Amino acid sequence: MGEPKRQIRLGVSAIGMGYHIAAWRHPDASPGGNMELAHFIRSAQAAERGLFDMFFLADGVGIRMYDEPPGALARSSKNVQFEPLTLLSALAMVTTHIGLIATASTTWNEPYHVARKFASLDHISGGRAGWNVVTSVTAQEAQNFGHEAPPDYDHRYDRAAEFVEVVRGLWDTWEDDAFLRDKASGINFNPSKLHILNHRGRHFTVRGPLNVARTPQGAPVIVQAGASEPGRELAAATADVVYAAAQTLEDAQAYYASVKSRMAKYGRHPDALKIMPGLMAIPGRTRQEAHDRYEILQELIHPVVGLAAIAGSLGDLSAFPLDGPVPEPTNPRMLSRARILLDMARRDNLSIRQLYLAIAGGNGHRTIIGTPADIADAMEEWFTQGAADSFNILPPWLPGGLEEVVDQVVPELQRRGLYRTAYEGRTLRAILGAAPAPNRHAGAARRAAE
Amino acid sequence: MGEPKRQIRLGVSAIGMGYHIAAWRHPDASPGGNMELAHFIRSAQAAERGLFDMFFLADGVGIRMYDEPPGALARSSKNVQFEPLTLLSALAMVTTHIGLIATASTTWNEPYHVARKFASLDHISGGRAGWNVVTSVTAQEAQNFGHEAPPDYDHRYDRAAEFVEVVRGLWDTWEDDAFLRDKASGINFNPSKLHILNHRGRHFTVRGPLNVARTPQGAPVIVQAGASEPGRELAAATADVVYAAAQTLEDAQAYYASVKSRMAKYGRHPDALKIMPGLMAIPGRTRQEAHDRYEILQELIHPVVGLAAIAGSLGDLSAFPLDGPVPEPTNPRMLSRARILLDMARRDNLSIRQLYLAIAGGNGHRTIIGTPADIADAMEEWFTQGAADSFNILPPWLPGGLEEVVDQVVPELQRRGLYRTAYEGRTLRAILGAAPAPNRHAGAARRAAE
Ligand SMILES: Cc1cc2nc3c(=O)[nH]c(=O)nc-3n(C[C@H](O)[C@H](O)[C@H](O)COP(=O)(O)O)c2cc1C
Ligand SMILES: Cc1cc2nc3c(=O)[nH]c(=O)nc-3n(C[C@H](O)[C@H](O)[C@H](O)COP(=O)(O)O)c2cc1C
Repeated sequence: MGEPKRQIRLGVSAIGMGYHIAAWRHPDASPGGNMELAHFIRSAQAAERGLFDMFFLADGVGIRMYDEPPGALARSSKNVQFEPLTLLSALAMVTTHIGLIATASTTWNEPYHVARKFASLDHISGGRAGWNVVTSVTAQEAQNFGHEAPPDYDHRYDRAAEFVEVVRGLWDTWEDDAFLRDKASGINFNPSKLHILNHRGRHFTVRGPLNVARTPQGAPVIVQAGASEPGRELAAATADVVYAAAQTLEDAQAYYASVKSRMAKYGRHPDALKIMPGLMAIPGRTRQEAHDRYEILQELIHPVVGLAAIAGSLGDLSAFPLDGPVPEPTNPRMLSRARILLDMARRDNLSIRQLYLAIAGGNGHRTIIGTPADIADAMEEWFTQGAADSFNILPPWLPGGLEEVVDQVVPELQRRGLYRTAYEGRTLRAILGAAPAPNRHAGAARRAAE
Repeated sequence: MGEPKRQIRLGVSAIGMGYHIAAWRHPDASPGGNMELAHFIRSAQAAERGLFDMFFLADGVGIRMYDEPPGALARSSKNVQFEPLTLLSALAMVTTHIGLIATASTTWNEPYHVARKFASLDHISGGRAGWNVVTSVTAQEAQNFGHEAPPDYDHRYDRAAEFVEVVRGLWDTWEDDAFLRDKASGINFNPSKLHILNHRGRHFTVRGPLNVARTPQGAPVIVQAGASEPGRELAAATADVVYAAAQTLEDAQAYYASVKSRMAKYGRHPDALKIMPGLMAIPGRTRQEAHDRYEILQELIHPVVGLAAIAGSLGDLSAFPLDGPVPEPTNPRMLSRARILLDMARRDNLSIRQLYLAIAGGNGHRTIIGTPADIADAMEEWFTQGAADSFNILPPWLPGGLEEVVDQVVPELQRRGLYRTAYEGRTLRAILGAAPAPNRHAGAARRAAE
């Protein structure tokens, strides 16, 4: 047996009704699926049938959409959802292998809670938990926690770095073999294998110990999605998986190289981190069928919802004609994203309507509409050209849009020898091809004795 | 059909290995059960087979036991556990009727998180979630959140009252019929049925809205366990169920009357609150069999663990002879509880060993060891004499100690016509005989129009 061949990996972002802004109106969608357990069970089981690495739930601690133009919010399904950790604990009971990734904010949480909830999910799922670390950028979220606006960028990332450090420290409280549970002697655990953290830092003072045993994975998997300099640095230092968003091969390669090249200084091998750009994939037996599938959703976008999708960066353009040119915004939010949208509009001479139609699906992520072979080609290119280790599938709607990828694209990748035909292990780390996370204290006694 | 007969209700406190301090050493126990999903599945399913109202998980955000005398902690199983909300979400998938009560602290949490996690569990379980509101008294917990010690009593209870108010306000964000999800018109929800909280109080500023839909119960059930004046007041004002601890009928009656009599001033009917004293029940076909069952556990108490059980209130007595008298403590903690233990020791002339054996099981809760008829008699007395609406069963060990109650005591209560023979509904509120929680905003438009 030689070196195992590097293969494409897949995960799915299973947020709400799906990624397309009109997903809930799809003829085959259950329009209240974002609050139906059956909707998520079916999606998670589809992803597991497709041998995906992970099932990911994005999250915000608040409704993050603005009602701009007025009426947009009431026409959107981005209003209510399950809390991810509770939902994934339930989904752990109806799946057996797939990794379960919940988002939790480092800005609006305390590390002790986060450490124990993810440790608990890791035990419940038999070692399949992962934490998507986010710093929560919206004012709406801040206002649910006594603040008008989020803390500034540097503060958030400084806090995030320390937060992850504390959580990891708590996960190392108990060595793997700390518990003896010897009924005969009455000794429950070996006290020399219990480690109190006693963390004192800039943002947190946390004594420990964690009141959850060492988890099946040693530590739940850490996922991150930072695009900025501090975001990339945090990912290089701590993440096992990174979400990315890029439209072009060049951008994806640049991001890939930038994050991987930062790892050496943290003593990490580049393979220890999987980079996972988002991909909205819409397959059809023919290109025409795929495009027709996409058009079903595009036609269901109410103009107010379309305008809202660009208002987040360009401001409210509802005073301008929908089929006229995109005006230079007077009050742009999120400058860099506003620039990207304007460049798009200018380059392709798009009207306001054409602009929102262009981003209504993938929202800045790469979108491939075509045959399974087209989609496999697109994946293979990025995978072999240093742009991706894995893809975060963004189904336009759930569960059908995901099931189409599982049933059509996965077999094509398998035919090419580019995709697993069975899971390689039971824990998420095993599935990712990684060893269990080592405990910083393990072997300390042995080393001291040497 | 006449007025339904008032019947005894049961719940179970399913903490860790069970209530007895030597539970994990029981010959039939799985000694690592406190971190095994199967242990809790079996316990929850036993309680549901017994038609219990609820399955309750106590919680602390930290290890709450002191290692005093040294060596006690390593001989105890009170070290690690699942986080309750994640565990109950998993248990929701393997049960169908029983209420699922998780503990969450108002001192070391933010209301927005608590509101959404319990709302999420209520959706996942189809309306079976409950929240045990606690204020977290230990220094160990405080030290995991940047404090040396918990805030003082009044501060904690003032914060708790406002915390519950905010959580309830968030649960009323969406009216029951807010969501239209009308694919044809594209209207997802009726904006006049979305209510922003805009809470500004002494402890919290929370804008809302909650990003979880109105829950199946309207609001998860609120459980409380305060013994003090502010604790009783909070229970009378907000709780649907109250845990109590009393050894004698007189004490239980006094507590019952005290809490129920406070309800009128909050506009509440006394039946709207169920009072639920703890009861360690150990049944046997004969009294001898029951006592033998109890002795199995009593004999497994290591003296250091026994001393630790009283050290929490009387301080470390390990310097004194185990079979000698209980000395007047020089450094007592928890004065009122220290007084109760000393009175017990003096009245019955107990040695140190006899004192810890006396409290090793129920830890201050009533303990009945006897035939199913003895236990049913004991319940019936308190139930008919204004001391209890329900009993919080504290199994000495899990799952066996609970299964014995389900299989032996429940049939005896049913024979007496004192206990249900089937669940009366699907949600916890329905099982408790309560209506769904009304939304404060519902009918406001109608009232305004009148
Ligand atoms: C695929 C993907 C998923 C994300 N999920 C969330 C999320 O669930 N919650 C959230 O607050 N932010 C989420 N983000 C935002 C990122 O955490 C991050 O804030 C964003 O990528 C900007 O990066 P920066 O903060 O380094 O500039 C996500 C980003 C990506 C690309
Ligand atoms: C049956 C029962 C269960 C309790 N569970 C918890 C718990 O899980 N976590 C906790 O911190 N306190 C728990 N408590 C403690 C109470 O919340 C409360 O602090 C205690 O009864 C003292 O009441 P007081 O604070 O009003 O003096 C429990 C008390 C009882 C009687």
